[in-house]
Amino acid sequence: MTLAVRYTAARTLDTAPAEPRSPGPGEVELAPAYVGICGTDLHIFHGDMDARVDTPAVLGHEMSGRVVRVGPGVEGWRPGDAVTVMPLRWDDSCPACRAGHRHICQHLDFIGIDSPGAMQQRWTVPAATLVRLPETLPLDRAALVEPTAVAVHDVGRAGVRADEKVVVVGGGPVGVLIALVARAAGADVRVVEISAHRRLLAEESGLTAWDPTAVDVPELVRQWTEDAGADVAFEVSGAAAGVDTAVEVLGVRARLCLVAIHPKPREISLHRFFWRELTLVGARLYDRTDFERAVALVADGTVPAERLISKVVPLIEAPSAFEALEGGGDVMKILVDCGNDTEEART
Amino acid sequence: MTLAVRYTAARTLDTAPAEPRSPGPGEVELAPAYVGICGTDLHIFHGDMDARVDTPAVLGHEMSGRVVRVGPGVEGWRPGDAVTVMPLRWDDSCPACRAGHRHICQHLDFIGIDSPGAMQQRWTVPAATLVRLPETLPLDRAALVEPTAVAVHDVGRAGVRADEKVVVVGGGPVGVLIALVARAAGADVRVVEISAHRRLLAEESGLTAWDPTAVDVPELVRQWTEDAGADVAFEVSGAAAGVDTAVEVLGVRARLCLVAIHPKPREISLHRFFWRELTLVGARLYDRTDFERAVALVADGTVPAERLISKVVPLIEAPSAFEALEGGGDVMKILVDCGNDTEEART
Repeated sequence: MTLAVRYTAARTLDTAPAEPRSPGPGEVELAPAYVGICGTDLHIFHGDMDARVDTPAVLGHEMSGRVVRVGPGVEGWRPGDAVTVMPLRWDDSCPACRAGHRHICQHLDFIGIDSPGAMQQRWTVPAATLVRLPETLPLDRAALVEPTAVAVHDVGRAGVRADEKVVVVGGGPVGVLIALVARAAGADVRVVEISAHRRLLAEESGLTAWDPTAVDVPELVRQWTEDAGADVAFEVSGAAAGVDTAVEVLGVRARLCLVAIHPKPREISLHRFFWRELTLVGARLYDRTDFERAVALVADGTVPAERLISKVVPLIEAPSAFEALEGGGDVMKILVDCGNDTEEART
Repeated sequence: MTLAVRYTAARTLDTAPAEPRSPGPGEVELAPAYVGICGTDLHIFHGDMDARVDTPAVLGHEMSGRVVRVGPGVEGWRPGDAVTVMPLRWDDSCPACRAGHRHICQHLDFIGIDSPGAMQQRWTVPAATLVRLPETLPLDRAALVEPTAVAVHDVGRAGVRADEKVVVVGGGPVGVLIALVARAAGADVRVVEISAHRRLLAEESGLTAWDPTAVDVPELVRQWTEDAGADVAFEVSGAAAGVDTAVEVLGVRARLCLVAIHPKPREISLHRFFWRELTLVGARLYDRTDFERAVALVADGTVPAERLISKVVPLIEAPSAFEALEGGGDVMKILVDCGNDTEEART
């Protein structure tokens, strides 16, 4: 018998025994090693997504681990292989899939939200979702691959080019990852973040971070860009003020990449979009190319994953980690240790 | 002595004698033949743009006419040449100009708003603003070239391709022109317009027009696109409901081209932009390529300009035409006849 972290009701998680599910045809059973706690997991914990999530629900979609067993017909994978999972299943038949945009399938199964996730000691998933990890990459760092894939996708959607000036509004894990990926693309980047702790972490990764409560961000951008305005802004804060800042700092023909989730309609200056011929680009999730690029960026240290991991908690403490995260505080990424990162798991 | 239509204060236009200005170096004196009344002219008339407009102001930037005199150093133009004017002057030094986007120069002089316009019997402009008209094109129709250039620019900014499904929200002159230009690019187009008169005009031009007060536009789009949603929407209405409709009809990775002016911030579903990876593209004015393409589309009848001209009024009646337009009613484009479209003007 193995353990799973389960969401049972608003603000209620437990750990409970779970029977591993034998891998069926085309499936693989994994031993998750580390699972990151994501903003979406917190939304579920808060009860904000009860209409979508069937309880009890096993959360978790940012993970690393190893193959335990492969089901019938699975080729190319064997026990001990280090992997992460691109947690998407599409229907391959809706208009989005037919147009080649399967990651935003109209009937997408986001594994870890719409179906059981990785926060458990055994996890059975389609082999098609596996992404190989290099043996040299520590599995705790590898749990950062999924949010890095988000960042790679966002930077790609925004079309960031070398020497462009980029403002990232919101310096949580995804914001900092976007900043790092944009910098790797050759851009000059500024991060706007309220939390002193997160600004410090960004700066320790070599980024420049501004406190919007202490400085006049649009004025700093004007000075920095010699009145031209930024080429690209990323809205990663989810806040109304973040949207305003992201729009205000942009120069003519600049792009605003919308990453954060804004559940309710937001007021936005459409006049500025008209006047400066701005472009707003929505970005959601990732595709396999983004994931593979993310593996490379985490593995080669472009993304200093170890700096972004604030804490690693054992599986049985995951419920209290959610409660602590809800309170905010000085934290970036928290990983849940499923107890599987052992020598014997490799073979 | 010649006559000019002058805006002197909110809701006040007069006609007054004006001394023609001799063309200086690089300038050309024109005899405007027809001048269209634009939505922007109405905004000025309402007093909404008093902060920008110096009174008395000669309005008018949608025009056709002929060259009367050329100033020193002007080559390639001679008296009698049929022309329209691309009414933009840029500073060639601001960041927008340096980036190659001179039409949205940060210090743009929009002739007819920021400096004297065409609603007069003689008009002196830089020769660089002239665009040649074919001798075979009647000058009344040629007054539609400027709004057609707007439409060409908008369709280009949205990247409309053959066989795409396009929804144009707002069926005034610019909306109908966008629909016609998009159709000429091979798109399948629907126009959404409240006014029965404007829907009829659109349909007489071979377009399909829907009344959003009588039908469920998003549902019709779902049926029309087999649940895929439209590829492109143009927001030309300037209304909050128009923005909502334009966002709602779009399929995944679709583009919303923002054409209308929304002076105040608008609530918009950013979540939909995220979820479907939509793109919003602001579009303003035009460049010379757009203008030359517009001349061709009006000249070859792709744009049936004669259908869109509701009325032609003599210069001295321009003030009352503005008052009539302000009342709304069954009208598309009204032209002011400057009294210069005569046989002797051609030579």
